[in-house]
Amino acid sequence: MKLLVINGSTREKGNSEFLTNVLLHDIPHSTLFLRDYQINPIKDQRHAANGFDPVDDDYERVIKQVLEHDILLFATPLYWYGMSGLMKNFVDRWSQCLRDKTMDFRSEMAKKQAFVVIVGGDRIHIKALPLVQQFQYIFDFMDMSMIGYLIGQGTKPEEVQNDRRALENAVTWNKKIRELL
Amino acid sequence: MKLLVINGSTREKGNSEFLTNVLLHDIPHSTLFLRDYQINPIKDQRHAANGFDPVDDDYERVIKQVLEHDILLFATPLYWYGMSGLMKNFVDRWSQCLRDKTMDFRSEMAKKQAFVVIVGGDRIHIKALPLVQQFQYIFDFMDMSMIGYLIGQGTKPEEVQNDRRALENAVTWNKKIRELL
Amino acid sequence: MKLLVINGSTREKGNSEFLTNVLLHDIPHSTLFLRDYQINPIKDQRHAANGFDPVDDDYERVIKQVLEHDILLFATPLYWYGMSGLMKNFVDRWSQCLRDKTMDFRSEMAKKQAFVVIVGGDRIHIKALPLVQQFQYIFDFMDMSMIGYLIGQGTKPEEVQNDRRALENAVTWNKKIRELL
Amino acid sequence: MKLLVINGSTREKGNSEFLTNVLLHDIPHSTLFLRDYQINPIKDQRHAANGFDPVDDDYERVIKQVLEHDILLFATPLYWYGMSGLMKNFVDRWSQCLRDKTMDFRSEMAKKQAFVVIVGGDRIHIKALPLVQQFQYIFDFMDMSMIGYLIGQGTKPEEVQNDRRALENAVTWNKKIRELL
Repeated sequence: MKLLVINGSTREKGNSEFLTNVLLHDIPHSTLFLRDYQINPIKDQRHAANGFDPVDDDYERVIKQVLEHDILLFATPLYWYGMSGLMKNFVDRWSQCLRDKTMDFRSEMAKKQAFVVIVGGDRIHIKALPLVQQFQYIFDFMDMSMIGYLIGQGTKPEEVQNDRRALENAVTWNKKIRELL
Repeated sequence: MKLLVINGSTREKGNSEFLTNVLLHDIPHSTLFLRDYQINPIKDQRHAANGFDPVDDDYERVIKQVLEHDILLFATPLYWYGMSGLMKNFVDRWSQCLRDKTMDFRSEMAKKQAFVVIVGGDRIHIKALPLVQQFQYIFDFMDMSMIGYLIGQGTKPEEVQNDRRALENAVTWNKKIRELL
Repeated sequence: MKLLVINGSTREKGNSEFLTNVLLHDIPHSTLFLRDYQINPIKDQRHAANGFDPVDDDYERVIKQVLEHDILLFATPLYWYGMSGLMKNFVDRWSQCLRDKTMDFRSEMAKKQAFVVIVGGDRIHIKALPLVQQFQYIFDFMDMSMIGYLIGQGTKPEEVQNDRRALENAVTWNKKIRELL
Repeated sequence: MKLLVINGSTREKGNSEFLTNVLLHDIPHSTLFLRDYQINPIKDQRHAANGFDPVDDDYERVIKQVLEHDILLFATPLYWYGMSGLMKNFVDRWSQCLRDKTMDFRSEMAKKQAFVVIVGGDRIHIKALPLVQQFQYIFDFMDMSMIGYLIGQGTKPEEVQNDRRALENAVTWNKKIRELL
């Protein structure tokens, strides 16, 4: 079982990255920072006569990495009560893969398990819940199983390090994820 | 009262555009198609020593139009159970305005009223609800009042034209919005 | 197709009743006011050696009526952001039916369609959404299909009569429900 | 600071009780099992000329205990994706207190902090979220602050004892609650 972190933060060494590192302490994994890639917003051509035009960006390179892993950990700061635009652009592009006859995106993704890490401020444990539900709908649609989610409080750099409960929850989840590998 | 549609669809003459046109029939308004502009995902520099670097894209031009209107109508297809990446990129950038001392973004936005139009498939009247809640949190954060929301069913081109109830609801809302102007 | 209204209001001629009457104008239906019956809170004996003890109240009489209908319309005021206790007591008792070998509750209910009417105040169109999701989970669990939901604003007696949009939506739904019959 | 558990389970030694005991290990508290009291569903007379009629049940005795504590811990099994009918009946009756001129219910409650424990099965960590949101709305309405919530998996008797993460989260919360006392 190979684990990939898909990090949607736009900041180096951000809170979502820190909390993910605690969560995955001593667990082998790769990390893909979406900010290191150019991924354009989707142009919806699902219903265009010739389907999607090829896009000259890094999306294919990124999705290729995704497909090589078994557990996907989506780590995102809560921006405006949703996943970051970086991450949303990435997920939106899945629609393109679903129409791509050179791959079997749906059945490949259905084999994967998913975990979600969300970090933010402003009553995060309540206000992240619509995003948790959104991720659940996404995974349901793709027949991916959702292992769980972890929410941490932190807006300013390093602030999540003060959210003791989030850190302890991360340690708890660490054991569970270890068992899955 | 000036009304601006902020359309997040990536498709011309899409379902969200169609439903919005029914909603705003004979109501003067401007429309801003986000797909006509280059708006980069935010680079979060809220906590950087020198704040946000200037970004060479169309965001400022767009937000300038937004600020000149009193009622903002956010129209988006439901992509992966959220607003489109195009629209998310746009909203994420508001964080930049909040740190911009040359403008009083918060108090300007607090004067505005907002309406949301969401169109999609797959049990849209249930699965759009996390997005409705997300928008409510966004508007609450900015002290904007939310007039309401309108949900329509439609995935394929022109499909929302068959959602008779959405169309009738649009007519009903039309009267309400007229009164606000 | 026989339609039954299950009304959870504790007040005669309340707002949920009024809105339901608009919704069902000229549509044949029966109404069951839960306040006219004694239905005790469930005593959870799902895991008791001998199962559920018989309960001396009106529940059986009520569920018998429910089972004789094809479309169930749950009409409830929003009390404390949920269905009324009266209605919750009723729904909770379904667990008892699920263990009752003299009936085939699950497959009988799975044939039914459901509609929900919720009336309340305090930003009802946002704050009723958790209840809408709860009903959806209930219907999903029972494999019942959810036709839709209608939300109205009104706290004081007759106040929903001023919610013009709710009334117009009721008329719109009236046509849809007519077609189902 | 005095802590009161308000337990809405109808079963002795149920999962919500077990998880609460872990959560409050070595923390002084009282427990009020709603199943030990007769609390009738509210009869909504908020708008009746003479207000609420006196009700001959145990509600007053229960609410008196509630008012004598500073931290309220609501522990409920998830019945049909909501709090138990027992607990809903209890909360619904708060409306009566709000109209009772012999007490200052609103300002008394606004001084309190609240915590929520929910135990159930069937993807509880997702399907309990509407109930978490409902509690948040309830506490917001009463200006009570919500300390947090703890969700455990368990349907059959003692099953929550296998939800290692819930138990570990309980220990984590134990420390936090200790600090509040």
